[in-house]
Amino acid sequence: MLVVQKFGGSSVADAACIMRVAQHAVAQYRAGQKIVVVLSAQGNTTDDLLAKAREINPDPSKRELDMLLVTGEQQAAALMALAIHKLGAPAISLNAVQVGIEATSLYGNARIKRIRPDRITRALELNNIVIVAGFQGVNRYGDMTTLGRGASDTTAVALAAVLGADICEIYSDVTGVFTADPRIVPTARKLPAISYDEMLELASMGAQVLHNRAVEMAKRHRVKLVLRSSRYFEDTGTQVKEGSTMEKLLFSGLALDRDVARISILGLRDRPGIAYHVFSLLAAQKICVDIILQTEGSGQTKDISFTVAKADMQSALDVLAINKDAIGFESTTHDTTLTKLSIIGAGMATNFGVASAMFEALYDCGVNINLISSSEIKITVLIDAEMADRAAKAIHEKFAQLMEE
Amino acid sequence: MLVVQKFGGSSVADAACIMRVAQHAVAQYRAGQKIVVVLSAQGNTTDDLLAKAREINPDPSKRELDMLLVTGEQQAAALMALAIHKLGAPAISLNAVQVGIEATSLYGNARIKRIRPDRITRALELNNIVIVAGFQGVNRYGDMTTLGRGASDTTAVALAAVLGADICEIYSDVTGVFTADPRIVPTARKLPAISYDEMLELASMGAQVLHNRAVEMAKRHRVKLVLRSSRYFEDTGTQVKEGSTMEKLLFSGLALDRDVARISILGLRDRPGIAYHVFSLLAAQKICVDIILQTEGSGQTKDISFTVAKADMQSALDVLAINKDAIGFESTTHDTTLTKLSIIGAGMATNFGVASAMFEALYDCGVNINLISSSEIKITVLIDAEMADRAAKAIHEKFAQLMEE
Repeated sequence: MLVVQKFGGSSVADAACIMRVAQHAVAQYRAGQKIVVVLSAQGNTTDDLLAKAREINPDPSKRELDMLLVTGEQQAAALMALAIHKLGAPAISLNAVQVGIEATSLYGNARIKRIRPDRITRALELNNIVIVAGFQGVNRYGDMTTLGRGASDTTAVALAAVLGADICEIYSDVTGVFTADPRIVPTARKLPAISYDEMLELASMGAQVLHNRAVEMAKRHRVKLVLRSSRYFEDTGTQVKEGSTMEKLLFSGLALDRDVARISILGLRDRPGIAYHVFSLLAAQKICVDIILQTEGSGQTKDISFTVAKADMQSALDVLAINKDAIGFESTTHDTTLTKLSIIGAGMATNFGVASAMFEALYDCGVNINLISSSEIKITVLIDAEMADRAAKAIHEKFAQLMEE
Repeated sequence: MLVVQKFGGSSVADAACIMRVAQHAVAQYRAGQKIVVVLSAQGNTTDDLLAKAREINPDPSKRELDMLLVTGEQQAAALMALAIHKLGAPAISLNAVQVGIEATSLYGNARIKRIRPDRITRALELNNIVIVAGFQGVNRYGDMTTLGRGASDTTAVALAAVLGADICEIYSDVTGVFTADPRIVPTARKLPAISYDEMLELASMGAQVLHNRAVEMAKRHRVKLVLRSSRYFEDTGTQVKEGSTMEKLLFSGLALDRDVARISILGLRDRPGIAYHVFSLLAAQKICVDIILQTEGSGQTKDISFTVAKADMQSALDVLAINKDAIGFESTTHDTTLTKLSIIGAGMATNFGVASAMFEALYDCGVNINLISSSEIKITVLIDAEMADRAAKAIHEKFAQLMEE
């Protein structure tokens, strides 16, 4: 059985942490499994390197930043190999160039294009535990690129896919996927299993258990994922797998995303291509737009509302202001006092009571809804940030009742 | 004009140091020169990484150690590129894989086999300042290797050779080559120029200005070296070039090496191949032998004395004890209270007064000579460690007088 295991930065923060992970890997290796370990950089290494770079150049070139940042994962991988050697097992560390993780050339946010499995396969055949530096790839110029923040998850899933691993274990600070953040909703339950689509919605809704792209890739390549705790190795965690093989949960989770700003464009002239015009201008500024809602305005106009990360709000407003005449609208409004609350459940599509139960819970605790958006397995509302925790508890309780009935 | 500039770890220890080096490189670049900068890791980075590795595994695998250590130079190179960008000049950092520095596979102490100049040449043609991570190579397995401590000098000289650079500047804490260590001999003078052979003797005699292999390589490929100060950029330093083109100095320098242990094998049976037998046994244990002296013993026997680094003394004595009957000798003696003092000068070979002047100076200040060895351009004595500084001053003064006469 071939297992790919991914550990984040806090799981390898110091020598003691590294030894714990090494012991876990070696125990499974001695039980007869083939092990590939994917690592992030130790603790705050990436942030420290970023700070060093910004001290020298506040606007650092992305290529050079990637040259700098990839060293963090390489160090963690080498130290892990040394720890495994110490425990008497063979191990070899490999960076992206050595593995052959070919990526697109976009520095800072590259995508994996292809992985050549030869070197890892050879190392596994020689009975090594293989340690791979996560988060990185090599582009067609032979340059190091990074795969975006938190992308070691993606490295692990991509390796599991290309190696045909039996399972891909993602270890982190949490013991699995919960129906809500247990720090906010104490009654939140851990799910033994969840579908790729539900996980995808949870990940994109701000539940920071698993990197979004990693889930997409796992779904596409049918990689069996398990989210597990790096603190409690005995915990079985949460499995992420095909929805068809599992019960469709009416309510599989609730997530809050506080980094959200709403912008509304009012009085847009109603003509074909207007939405395309607006959002291509924003895309050209590399502003990532989340929820988009278009409603009828008064008379011949309509209104478009959308959300962006708070850091992008001002640039978005600037782009709109500069292009006001070209686009043709009356005014814009914006709001940064909101939080995005989403509930996810594959069973929603076939159960008409879900949305109304959510709205009822919000009404019962006096929370006003600023914006509503829904997909087949998700309902998102924008609500007053100060009400977010209360709303989360109320909704969670409501669904706990519903599911017991 | 193409200039290769090498800066050591203390020259890039922090952001301010890096900016100073960047300013120097950019000033020369703007004066129309093509610049390749070779860097060591920042400050104590290499030692810190070694300590981290040893905390996890006191006997770390050399392969994994190299994976770990090469990150230091890569970080320094990326930060330097960012600093040069900040000053408005184009720059690109390259590691050994990207440059194509092919090395032997001996981890921890690899040799450069070949450098593919294509990528650097292309980057220079695009008007970049090219920053290269020193100290590292890539072996035929695609693994990172390091070139041994202090080997960034070698990287610089090798690059200068393959690129046909007009000059290779080695920047360090000292302003050039002195006739003796100025901290010990206050009257020591800085030499404006020195030959490769003299520099080679000085470097191998413990004067830590320049890495030995770098000088050998510079001599072989006729690379014009300049040793310069990274603190006082206005200082012209010391040129290292062909001896034939310069005055043959009677006395070009004096060096002390305190890491020396003497071992004597007494009463060796006098038969052919005996020296080969002894030193092949030591070589098999990877013990590096420095001075070797063979003298007639009493009767049919002879004595062999040699020096090794202090750390190797016990293993050398063990090897000899185990093979006592096979080699055939009476006893061994050893001494760790000695220091090696050498004087170097290309003019020595043709001036018979040099050795006697040295011995006279030692006699005048009451220093007993334990062992003498000499080559065409060098005389080495082993003397009592406590007398070493006094002896150095006395000899330096003696030669200062002689050269004035």
